[in-house]
Amino acid sequence: MAAAAAEQQQQGFRPLDEASLVAYIKATPALAARLGGRLDALTIKEVGDGNLNFVYIVLSDAGSLVIKQALPYIRLVGDSWPMSRERAYFEASALQKHRALCPDHVPEVYHFDRAMSLIGMRYIEPPHIILRKGLIAGVEYPLLAEHMADYMAKTLFFTSLLYNSTTDHKKGVAQYCDNVEMCRLTEQVVFSDPYMLAKYNRCTSPFLDNDAAAVREDAELKLEIAELKSMFIERAQALLHGDLHTGSIMVTPDSTQVIDPEFAFYGPMGYDIGAFLGNLILAYFSQDGHADQANDRKAYKKWILKTIEDSWNLFHKNSELLRLAQKKYMTSLFHDSLGFGSAKMIRRIVGIAHVEDFESIEDASKRASCERRALNCAKAILKGRRQFESIGQVIVHVQSFDRD
Amino acid sequence: MAAAAAEQQQQGFRPLDEASLVAYIKATPALAARLGGRLDALTIKEVGDGNLNFVYIVLSDAGSLVIKQALPYIRLVGDSWPMSRERAYFEASALQKHRALCPDHVPEVYHFDRAMSLIGMRYIEPPHIILRKGLIAGVEYPLLAEHMADYMAKTLFFTSLLYNSTTDHKKGVAQYCDNVEMCRLTEQVVFSDPYMLAKYNRCTSPFLDNDAAAVREDAELKLEIAELKSMFIERAQALLHGDLHTGSIMVTPDSTQVIDPEFAFYGPMGYDIGAFLGNLILAYFSQDGHADQANDRKAYKKWILKTIEDSWNLFHKNSELLRLAQKKYMTSLFHDSLGFGSAKMIRRIVGIAHVEDFESIEDASKRASCERRALNCAKAILKGRRQFESIGQVIVHVQSFDRD
Repeated sequence: MAAAAAEQQQQGFRPLDEASLVAYIKATPALAARLGGRLDALTIKEVGDGNLNFVYIVLSDAGSLVIKQALPYIRLVGDSWPMSRERAYFEASALQKHRALCPDHVPEVYHFDRAMSLIGMRYIEPPHIILRKGLIAGVEYPLLAEHMADYMAKTLFFTSLLYNSTTDHKKGVAQYCDNVEMCRLTEQVVFSDPYMLAKYNRCTSPFLDNDAAAVREDAELKLEIAELKSMFIERAQALLHGDLHTGSIMVTPDSTQVIDPEFAFYGPMGYDIGAFLGNLILAYFSQDGHADQANDRKAYKKWILKTIEDSWNLFHKNSELLRLAQKKYMTSLFHDSLGFGSAKMIRRIVGIAHVEDFESIEDASKRASCERRALNCAKAILKGRRQFESIGQVIVHVQSFDRD
Repeated sequence: MAAAAAEQQQQGFRPLDEASLVAYIKATPALAARLGGRLDALTIKEVGDGNLNFVYIVLSDAGSLVIKQALPYIRLVGDSWPMSRERAYFEASALQKHRALCPDHVPEVYHFDRAMSLIGMRYIEPPHIILRKGLIAGVEYPLLAEHMADYMAKTLFFTSLLYNSTTDHKKGVAQYCDNVEMCRLTEQVVFSDPYMLAKYNRCTSPFLDNDAAAVREDAELKLEIAELKSMFIERAQALLHGDLHTGSIMVTPDSTQVIDPEFAFYGPMGYDIGAFLGNLILAYFSQDGHADQANDRKAYKKWILKTIEDSWNLFHKNSELLRLAQKKYMTSLFHDSLGFGSAKMIRRIVGIAHVEDFESIEDASKRASCERRALNCAKAILKGRRQFESIGQVIVHVQSFDRD
């Protein structure tokens, strides 16, 4: 970011507390309206239990909302680990983009203030709770697999080249490239630190000390993680949530809402899908630690496994995404075929080996006239092949060179 | 090829004429049998009208076959343009491979002699003629589009990664890499020479002199052809026929037989599809030169266009290939998801940010025991993710780490 812009933005920023938050809401019509204008007896509660931000629930007797503000460091570690407040911009942008694609499972953004790194959004009301807490409590969510398969299919496939043009895709990729600090954080804490001695690593010591050392000494594992790290950085396949663990999902038995996409970027689809499934497997293995005489958790473990299986299978069977995958493959093959086909035509007219179709026309002037039409037709196809959407359009194009 | 092997092969080689051909057949049981052993009154006819080889039709009163021998130069140009006889090996190999995938449209190979660069194969009997000659004569082939769509779908998709394992695919790629001389010939005559002043270029002069010059001076066209040339060389997508023009196809109204795959190599599928469609378009533009008072060829031109359209559309709609394209895409995404999912699990146990699922287990020994199972499960998935074919297999794998 240019220094002037950075300074200007710095100038507009101040961390809010409960008192200044009220003043901010009063000065912001889009937020005041969501509280029905009843701003004199607000209930405000700070609930940011994540690693990064401050989150306030704001209730009036006529409405509700959530205010989320990013501070310029990682809350979990403190100001010793600075982190760009611009993550709030990427979170707001991703929420809006994903909500447009999947309104059932992404909350509405009411207001975004880039200078303040502040998002005003829907309060996802009780009985919604964070999915991770529901998993620890042993609560079944019968629609979770279906909802998450739908969310992943819609947000991933419709932000990929399966659906978008190259130009639009590259615009999106460029926009989210600036979320590089968050990506670097992920690279470090997911793909690097666990495989080396690193300051902030920890494990259940002393019981897992040897296991952690074994991870650091496993060459095959390190090779695999290096491959995934490359893919994570290089492969701009779709606009990911970027942190799709069970703490980023709020649930009731009927509703599933995905929040907190501040790590959003264009990356490999498998990163989001893997985050969700991997965290369900973690929940599975933690169940034995939560079992007691009243509940051995065995039935619940079965439900978790079924949810993992259903989530992938429903995602996999999503007919829309399969149609898109087909279309993408076949369109690319179609344009290759048109390119090579026109190259083969051109060489038969001005190259070494000609074809009997033309050679057998004895009148050279007449032959040349036929050949010229074929040549001009082929040149136009070669240059414009990516514009054709069907063979029917190619046929019309061929005929347009055939004026008698 | 090692010098010793090259010399040995050279020693075993002798160009056949009609007399020595009969002796060769008599000494070769696989060929003699196809003639019903009636070898005393053979009819032999040399019919190689192509650019490269000698071709003999051999008939007895009890059978028939074709003998094709490659000579160490290009027949069209003469011995001033040497060309490896090994092309016969690639032709025989490709015929056998493609026939296994598409027996209806690829003739049987009876015998192959690598030292002699000699193929004995089915005589594709009259009324079969070369498709190009049928197109010049104005003959309609109502099943041509359907047959060629079937041939292209089967030979291309089943020799690609849509169907084969990486290991098998790379074996095939390595085998056909040695057909490099034929590929270099194509590079030169299709992708290079027509766009520059080159010794063997010709055109219908003087009528097309300016058109040929315009091709050589068209920067945009040259950029496009350079891109296709790269793809032709680099992209080992499927085992191509490599020269799928209308002179490589023999037809009757009921039968379509694809011959002469001596240019076979692993390249972009679009090269074969484009060769076929491009040559149909050439046939289309040549029709006006063949029109006369008895036949204005207008109806025939419509049939050619319909054949182009149907060929692509039937290829495109082949349900088997669509299924394979889907499967390939989804399998790759599945393995990515498993890789990233296990990376996310590992980092939650030995990295900086842990999860409440485990953290809320107060007994550290019990917590460690749960975590160790999750860690070992994740390590095994990360290393072996490409072995999983369904989420059900992953579930079984997860459970195997869950011994109480």
